[in-house]
Amino acid sequence: MRFFSDNAAAACPEALAALAEANRLDTAYDCDRWSQRLNQAFSELFERDVEALWVSTGTAANALALAALCPPYGSIVCHRDAHIQNDECGAPEFYSGGAKLLLGEGKGAKLTPDIVESLIAGVRDDVHQVQPAALSITNATEYGCLYTAQETAALGELAKARGLRFHLDGARFANAVARLGCAPADLTWRAGVDALSFGFTKNGALSAEALVLFDPALVQETHYRRKRAGHLLSKGRYLAAQILAMLEGEVWLRNARAANEAAARLAGAAGGERLVLPAEANEVFIRVTRSEAAALRALGFDFYDWGPGEARLVTAWDSDPAHVDAFAAAIAGL
Amino acid sequence: MRFFSDNAAAACPEALAALAEANRLDTAYDCDRWSQRLNQAFSELFERDVEALWVSTGTAANALALAALCPPYGSIVCHRDAHIQNDECGAPEFYSGGAKLLLGEGKGAKLTPDIVESLIAGVRDDVHQVQPAALSITNATEYGCLYTAQETAALGELAKARGLRFHLDGARFANAVARLGCAPADLTWRAGVDALSFGFTKNGALSAEALVLFDPALVQETHYRRKRAGHLLSKGRYLAAQILAMLEGEVWLRNARAANEAAARLAGAAGGERLVLPAEANEVFIRVTRSEAAALRALGFDFYDWGPGEARLVTAWDSDPAHVDAFAAAIAGL
Amino acid sequence: MRFFSDNAAAACPEALAALAEANRLDTAYDCDRWSQRLNQAFSELFERDVEALWVSTGTAANALALAALCPPYGSIVCHRDAHIQNDECGAPEFYSGGAKLLLGEGKGAKLTPDIVESLIAGVRDDVHQVQPAALSITNATEYGCLYTAQETAALGELAKARGLRFHLDGARFANAVARLGCAPADLTWRAGVDALSFGFTKNGALSAEALVLFDPALVQETHYRRKRAGHLLSKGRYLAAQILAMLEGEVWLRNARAANEAAARLAGAAGGERLVLPAEANEVFIRVTRSEAAALRALGFDFYDWGPGEARLVTAWDSDPAHVDAFAAAIAGL
Amino acid sequence: MRFFSDNAAAACPEALAALAEANRLDTAYDCDRWSQRLNQAFSELFERDVEALWVSTGTAANALALAALCPPYGSIVCHRDAHIQNDECGAPEFYSGGAKLLLGEGKGAKLTPDIVESLIAGVRDDVHQVQPAALSITNATEYGCLYTAQETAALGELAKARGLRFHLDGARFANAVARLGCAPADLTWRAGVDALSFGFTKNGALSAEALVLFDPALVQETHYRRKRAGHLLSKGRYLAAQILAMLEGEVWLRNARAANEAAARLAGAAGGERLVLPAEANEVFIRVTRSEAAALRALGFDFYDWGPGEARLVTAWDSDPAHVDAFAAAIAGL
Repeated sequence: MRFFSDNAAAACPEALAALAEANRLDTAYDCDRWSQRLNQAFSELFERDVEALWVSTGTAANALALAALCPPYGSIVCHRDAHIQNDECGAPEFYSGGAKLLLGEGKGAKLTPDIVESLIAGVRDDVHQVQPAALSITNATEYGCLYTAQETAALGELAKARGLRFHLDGARFANAVARLGCAPADLTWRAGVDALSFGFTKNGALSAEALVLFDPALVQETHYRRKRAGHLLSKGRYLAAQILAMLEGEVWLRNARAANEAAARLAGAAGGERLVLPAEANEVFIRVTRSEAAALRALGFDFYDWGPGEARLVTAWDSDPAHVDAFAAAIAGL
Repeated sequence: MRFFSDNAAAACPEALAALAEANRLDTAYDCDRWSQRLNQAFSELFERDVEALWVSTGTAANALALAALCPPYGSIVCHRDAHIQNDECGAPEFYSGGAKLLLGEGKGAKLTPDIVESLIAGVRDDVHQVQPAALSITNATEYGCLYTAQETAALGELAKARGLRFHLDGARFANAVARLGCAPADLTWRAGVDALSFGFTKNGALSAEALVLFDPALVQETHYRRKRAGHLLSKGRYLAAQILAMLEGEVWLRNARAANEAAARLAGAAGGERLVLPAEANEVFIRVTRSEAAALRALGFDFYDWGPGEARLVTAWDSDPAHVDAFAAAIAGL
Repeated sequence: MRFFSDNAAAACPEALAALAEANRLDTAYDCDRWSQRLNQAFSELFERDVEALWVSTGTAANALALAALCPPYGSIVCHRDAHIQNDECGAPEFYSGGAKLLLGEGKGAKLTPDIVESLIAGVRDDVHQVQPAALSITNATEYGCLYTAQETAALGELAKARGLRFHLDGARFANAVARLGCAPADLTWRAGVDALSFGFTKNGALSAEALVLFDPALVQETHYRRKRAGHLLSKGRYLAAQILAMLEGEVWLRNARAANEAAARLAGAAGGERLVLPAEANEVFIRVTRSEAAALRALGFDFYDWGPGEARLVTAWDSDPAHVDAFAAAIAGL
Repeated sequence: MRFFSDNAAAACPEALAALAEANRLDTAYDCDRWSQRLNQAFSELFERDVEALWVSTGTAANALALAALCPPYGSIVCHRDAHIQNDECGAPEFYSGGAKLLLGEGKGAKLTPDIVESLIAGVRDDVHQVQPAALSITNATEYGCLYTAQETAALGELAKARGLRFHLDGARFANAVARLGCAPADLTWRAGVDALSFGFTKNGALSAEALVLFDPALVQETHYRRKRAGHLLSKGRYLAAQILAMLEGEVWLRNARAANEAAARLAGAAGGERLVLPAEANEVFIRVTRSEAAALRALGFDFYDWGPGEARLVTAWDSDPAHVDAFAAAIAGL
C-alpha cells in the first residue's frame, strides 16, 4: 500500500489506449498528427493562443522555461523548498547558463508578494550582483498547498512591476485546478504567468509533460533549446497522443480529483492537530512520532519521512480506495 | 509506403508488452525492478561489468557521453556528417560546456586513423587552441556504412595513443552487430570504446536508448548529469522494461536483421551503378534524377532527397515486405 | 580623505618601477622572462613547488579556481557574505558551468567546521541534489576578520574528510599574513588549501593577482581555462613584473602592515562599543547613527554605508597618515 | 631584431604617461574620471553615440561581443583562419554558452558575401541544426589584409538581410583605418557593424582594448557579462586613461601608420613573387625556403614560421627603423 509518491503511479487507461493508437508509422519528431494538434488543444483549454511543447520530464519543462525567462546573468526568485531548487540537481543553472536561484521562505512552500519584494530589496542594483529576472512558483506547491487565482495574480502584478518574468511549475497543476474549480487561464496567463510546466506524468501519463508558453516571444528559442537538450523525442507522437487523450473528456481533471479526494480522506482522518499543513491537493503532511510511523509501516503502509517527526503521504489518480480507507483508519487510530 | 526514416517506425510487440507489464505501481526514477536489472543485462551482453543508463533520446545519450569524455576546453574529433555535428542542434556543445567539434571527411561518413591523425596534427599544441580530447564515431554510420571490429580497434588504439577518449554513437548499433555477426564487445570496449549510445528507438522501442559506460570512472558524474539535464524520468521503468524485453530473446538483433534485409533487397534492386555507397545496414543511398524521384513518389513511395541527384531510403524493423518488394521492383524498373 | 575601498588605492612605487622595467620588447603571453620566474618565486614563498598564474582580477582568480575544484553538478560551500556570492555577478556559476553556492552564516563572514558540517548534512545524498564538492573561505574575510592557521587547518581536515576541495579567496591574504605573522604555507597548503587567489591589486599593484595552485592536477586545465576566459594577457609580463617586484623585499607584507596599522588606529579610536567586529585586517566596521555618519562626511571623510547604522572604513597601503589621524580623531570625538 | 608579433611590443610613451597620471586615489571599477569619459571620446570618434567598455584582452572583447550577438543555440559565421576560431581556446563557445562557429574559406582570411551566402545555404532551416545568428570578420585580417568600407558594407547588408548580427574583430583596426584613410564610422556602424573589438594593446597600450557597442540594446547585458567574466578591473582607470591618451592627438593612428610603413618596407623589399599576399597592414607573409629562413635567423631576425615555405613578419609601432632597414635589405638579398 504505497503512499510514497505520485511519481510511482501507473499510467491511466486513456494514456495507454493513446499509446496503442499512436503506434503506427508516422512522421518523426513533432510533425506527426498528434503533436500537430497540441497547440490547438491547449489553446482551447486556456482560452487563447498558446504554444505547447511536449517533453518527457517536469525538470526539462521547468529548465527550458527558466532558460527562456532568465538570462545567465540573472536570478530566479523561488521558494527555498521549490522543486527547481531542491530536486533537479541544478537543471535551472545548467539550462540557463549559470543563473542563480534567489530563495525565499514562506509557509507551505508558498511565496507572497511581501516575501518576493523583500528578496528583491536585498539585491544591490549594480553590476556586481545578478539581478532578479524571473519568478517561479509551484502550484500545487511541494507541500500540497495552493495558490488561488487571486494570489497568483498578485504575484503576477508584482512580477510585472519589477520586470520579472513569471514561471509556474505545474507538476500538480491539475490538482490545483481540480480543487480550486477555476479556469486554467485564471491560474496562469490571466494572472501574468508567461510559461507553465503542465504535468501529466504524476497525474496518469506514462511520461509526458507539456510546456505551455503564453508569450509568443519565447516560442522559437524554446524549440531550439528543447532539441539541443535532447528532449525532442523522435517518436514524440506517443507523448502527444497521451496528452491529447488526457485533455479530452477532462481525464486530467477526473484523475486529479480522485487523487485530491483520497488525500482529503487521509487528512480528515488525521485531524487538525496532526496536520502540519492543510491538505489542499494530493499531498498530506502529518506529525508522527517514530513509533507511530513504525506502526503504520508495520501495517503495510509506505510513505516518505519528511524531516524529524513528520511524514509525507501522497495519493495518486489510482490510489486504491481500499488502501486509502485502511490508511485513514490506521491514522485515525494512532 | 514510407522509407523516410526509421525514426518514424512503430514500436514492436515486445516493447509494447513490456510497457503493459511495467504499468503498475513501483518505485520512481531508476529504483524500480526493471531499471535495477539493466546493468546486469548489459553486462551479460557485453561480457564484462558495465553501467547502463536509460535515456529517452539518442541525442541525450550522445551528449551525456561526450560531456563525460571531453572537458569544456577540449575538442571532439568526429566526421563532418556525424549526427552529433549535424542533427543535434549543438547538444554536445551545450552538455560539454562549450567544447568544439573537430570535423573530418571520409567516405560513407567513416573516419580512418589517417584522417584522425591528420586532424590532430592540424592542432597546435598550445594553450591558444582547444586540444582534441575525444573521438566519436557512428556505427552504423549516418550513411549506412559499417566499421568492422578491426577498423574500430584501429581507431581505438590511435585514440589511446593520442590520449583521446572514445565514444561510439550506436543509434543503429543493432544493425551493425546484426550485419557483422560479431560480439557486441568486439565493436566496443575490446576495441577501446569508453562509452556507447546504444539505440533502441529506431529499432523498435517506443522511446528508449541505453547509454552504456565501459569506464567505471564515468559512472557517477553521468548519473548527476542525466538528472541535471532532465533525463531521469520519474517513470523510467517503462524505458527499462522495453530495453530488457528487446534484449531478451535477441529481439534487438531480429529487428535489426529484418531492417537490414529489407535494405539489402532495395540495394540489390538498385544495382551497382545506382548505389552511392554499399548498403551495409538499413540505409540505402541511390542516384536518381529528379524525374526518377518524382516517378517513385508518384507510385506512393516516400523517401528523403539527399542532396542533388541522390535519395536516402531507410528501412525499419517493421518495413512491410510487400512495400519493400514493390519499392525494389520500382527501383529496378527505373 | 577616502576610506571607501582599497580597490581605489594607487599603485605602489615598486609596482610602477616594475612596469617601466618590463616595458621592452619581449615574448608575448606568459613566455617572457618575468612570467617564467613566477613559479619559482611563489614556490620559495610557500616552501614547496606550486604553480602560479597571473590574472588581472580577483574575480577571475576565484572563478578559475572554483571551476577547477567543483564540477558543474556540484556545489561550493561558502559564507553568505562571501565575495564569490555577493560581488562577482555569478562568475563562479559561469566558470563552473552552473554549480550552485551553498551558503552558510557565521560571525564576521567566517565559517566554522560546525557550520560547514551542518550545511553538508542538509543535502540529501542522492542524484536529485547537487552534492557539495568544494569549500571556499576568504582570509581576511569580507568583514576584516581572520582565520588563524589552526582554524584554517580544521576546515581543511573537514574538507578532506568530506571529499571537498578547498579554495582560499585571498584578496587580502597579505593582510592576513601580515597580522598573523605566520608562514604563508600555514594558512594554505599545510592547512589543506588546494588553490589560493592571492591578491596584489588591493595591496598596491596596478591590476595583478596570482592564482596559486597547490595541487599539480589542477595546473593544466587552469591554463586552458584562463586562456578561454580571455585572461591570458598578451602583455602579461607587466603583471608578472609587478608581482615579482612586490614579492621581492617583502613589499607585499610592508604594504599590508601599513594598511593594517591604519585600520588598527581607526578601530582603537572607535573603541569597543562602537566596533561591530574586531578589526583584524584593514577593514573597520563601526556603528554610527545617520547624523554621526553625516558629520564625518561633512568633515571630508568618505566611506561605505554598511546596512542601517553601520559603516565600513577601509584603509590601504597608501592611506595618508595625516588622514588616518584626522579620521581617528573625528571618530573618537563622535 | 624581433618581427615575431606586435603582441610583444612595448607600451608607447603616451600610454605610460597616462598610467602615471591615473596613479592616484580614485573610485574603483569604471566609475573613475577616466572611465567616465570613454563613451564620449568614442562617440566623437565614431560620429554618433556609442557605448565603450574597456577590457584587458582582445579575446575578452570578442567573446563578450559574440555572447551578446549570438544565442547559445546559434552559430557564428567566420573565416576558418579567424582569431576567434584558432587562437582563443574556445572563448566564443564558453561565453556564448555553446554556440558553434561556422567556418568559411577565403583568400587572405577574408570573407565575401558569396562565401557567407554559401555557408548559410548549407544549413538546413530546421530545429536540428543551429542557425546562423552572427557574422564576425577581422579587419585588418589575421593575414594582414583589409576590408574596405565598401566590402564591409556589402557584408553588413547581407547580414541584415539574413538576420545576422555583425561583429568586427578590430585587434588591428587602427592599422586598417590608418591605411584606408577612411572614417572609423565607415568601417563599422555605417557598414552595419553592431559591435567592434577595438584593439589598443598591439598598437602601443600596455593591456587595454575597447569593446565598442553601436547597438544600445547590447549595452546593459554586456556590463553584466563583463563583470561576470572577471573583466571588470577594480582599477580600470589605468585602462581607460591609456585608451584616452591614445585617442587624443591621434596617437593610435600615428602608431598604426608607423607599423604599416615598416611592413610596407619589408613587403617592398620582398617583391611580388615572394609575397604570399599583399601587405596592407602591419603583417607580411613571404615565401621562404628553409635555408632562406635559417639564413635570415642567422642574421638575427626573429619571425614566425607560417606553414611550410612561408614566414610571417610582423611590425609594430615601435619597430626600430634600423632593424627594419636591415631586415628589408636581408630579404631583398635572399
